[in-house]
Amino acid sequence: MKVALFAGGTGGTKLAHGFAMLGNQVELSVIANVGDDVAVHGLLVCPDIDALLYTLGGLIDAERGWGVVDDTHTAHAMFARYGEPTWFTVGDADLATHIHRTWRMAEGASLTDATAAMASALGVGARILPATDERHRTMVSTDDGELAFQEYFVRLRQQPEVRGVRFASAAGSRARATPAVLAAIATSQLVVIGPSNPIVSIGPILALDGVRTALESATGVRLAVSPIIAGQALKGPADRMLASMGHEVSAAGVARLYAGLVDRFVIDEADAALAPQIAALGMEPVVLPTVMRDDSARAGLAEALLAGIA
Amino acid sequence: MKVALFAGGTGGTKLAHGFAMLGNQVELSVIANVGDDVAVHGLLVCPDIDALLYTLGGLIDAERGWGVVDDTHTAHAMFARYGEPTWFTVGDADLATHIHRTWRMAEGASLTDATAAMASALGVGARILPATDERHRTMVSTDDGELAFQEYFVRLRQQPEVRGVRFASAAGSRARATPAVLAAIATSQLVVIGPSNPIVSIGPILALDGVRTALESATGVRLAVSPIIAGQALKGPADRMLASMGHEVSAAGVARLYAGLVDRFVIDEADAALAPQIAALGMEPVVLPTVMRDDSARAGLAEALLAGIA
Repeated sequence: MKVALFAGGTGGTKLAHGFAMLGNQVELSVIANVGDDVAVHGLLVCPDIDALLYTLGGLIDAERGWGVVDDTHTAHAMFARYGEPTWFTVGDADLATHIHRTWRMAEGASLTDATAAMASALGVGARILPATDERHRTMVSTDDGELAFQEYFVRLRQQPEVRGVRFASAAGSRARATPAVLAAIATSQLVVIGPSNPIVSIGPILALDGVRTALESATGVRLAVSPIIAGQALKGPADRMLASMGHEVSAAGVARLYAGLVDRFVIDEADAALAPQIAALGMEPVVLPTVMRDDSARAGLAEALLAGIA
Repeated sequence: MKVALFAGGTGGTKLAHGFAMLGNQVELSVIANVGDDVAVHGLLVCPDIDALLYTLGGLIDAERGWGVVDDTHTAHAMFARYGEPTWFTVGDADLATHIHRTWRMAEGASLTDATAAMASALGVGARILPATDERHRTMVSTDDGELAFQEYFVRLRQQPEVRGVRFASAAGSRARATPAVLAAIATSQLVVIGPSNPIVSIGPILALDGVRTALESATGVRLAVSPIIAGQALKGPADRMLASMGHEVSAAGVARLYAGLVDRFVIDEADAALAPQIAALGMEPVVLPTVMRDDSARAGLAEALLAGIA
């Protein structure tokens, strides 16, 4: 079965891993957020793509949820000696990823091509599709002014309150989703919006030219999984961000953001009482255990999402 | 006293270190070979400049004579996973050097500017001057065809016999020495051609537009130190290369290559018998212990070269 999964950050990546663990029964395309991408030491760093590459390739530092397990940080110390900013820590193996990608792209490969080659090299069976090959960088408006995403997320450790988000593109025009992304949405029997931050992980994908239209006309079952459980994000600032941007901090608040885009909305068992609110938004509420504590919980959630899909 | 030193490879670098150890009495400009430069993983690697940076900055892996001491090789293993060629090993700290340089240059810095900033960051007091800021890559003709220098030197471990050398430049025209290099030659009281390979370390510098003329009109004392002692190179393929290119494999054979360019030619005590041959070439022979076994021998040789210079 063909599955397309919108993913960014920890939750989406874990669910991608869950689907990948189901093996040949699922032909998985992960549509990865690129709004977090950032140039570090002149190299293109794609945190969400890399988390997918490392997780699905079995290299992830599972404790941190990013980077390569047992990585060294020798280059980082040398960058410090050269007086480079060091607030964005890049391990040595991780650095090879950024160098390899940047080099391939300098030689003409698209981000999509480069990612496909790297996934293949790391033995990743799923397709990891950057949401766009164009420049599309998340900029957050805060009380401290507008910040590039990683300035907010890493350098300032998500301290400022987020009041708004926009996406900076190369030409000043709106970036387009890749043809591969639009095809994955159109041809999958199941399209899943992962349990990722709706504002800065899923939002950037939905903001791309072509994505909402593709979702609206998708023939597969469209489903979203709430990243908010009992009013809280399991990881990251999604809950605070929903609040500071004036949204309800609950699974229902997230569901409202996806109204018209999905047929089913999955809430955690802890939020079963919200089912009527979800139904009132025109979505079928599905109550499941959604906390992906370990590998078997990841695979279990993926399997549950497939239930009843032709 | 102002000293300009032509350097490439191990011998020239050790002598640079010797001059640097003399402290404030010497204002040292090292004119560094760039013919060995190579793009690795899309990054600009400058082996001779880096050996100078690391040696003068106290970071060199003294046992190997290149790279950073106690470096890790985590990125290298990751490059292998991505299917990149791995015959050119780059340590992780070393990688930071190449990234930093490549980035600065992508932002518009010349190689000279980038090198100066890096030397300063590493606490190097000497000026390290790339011989040229233009493309000037050593290509060696061998019985196996023409090879880029590092293909010959590293990948093929200097196995093929070298029959000739040429320098590939960007425009097909001859690369020019930088103004800083020409000024260092013109204004130094002592100009030293270090004990480096005359074909592939010093040769590329002498081949640059402006260098021979500058040397010919230099007002300081011009001196070369033989890299050949008792018919052998202490390290590297200089002896074999001299032979395969039809030169005499001796200090006198090297002196012949520098005829008209230097006033004094320093030979090792082991070669004292060659003094008359050197004199016959129109150079003053100087017999000294030239083997730089340890730091004090490096400083001792540098000090001896300064003897009698105003």
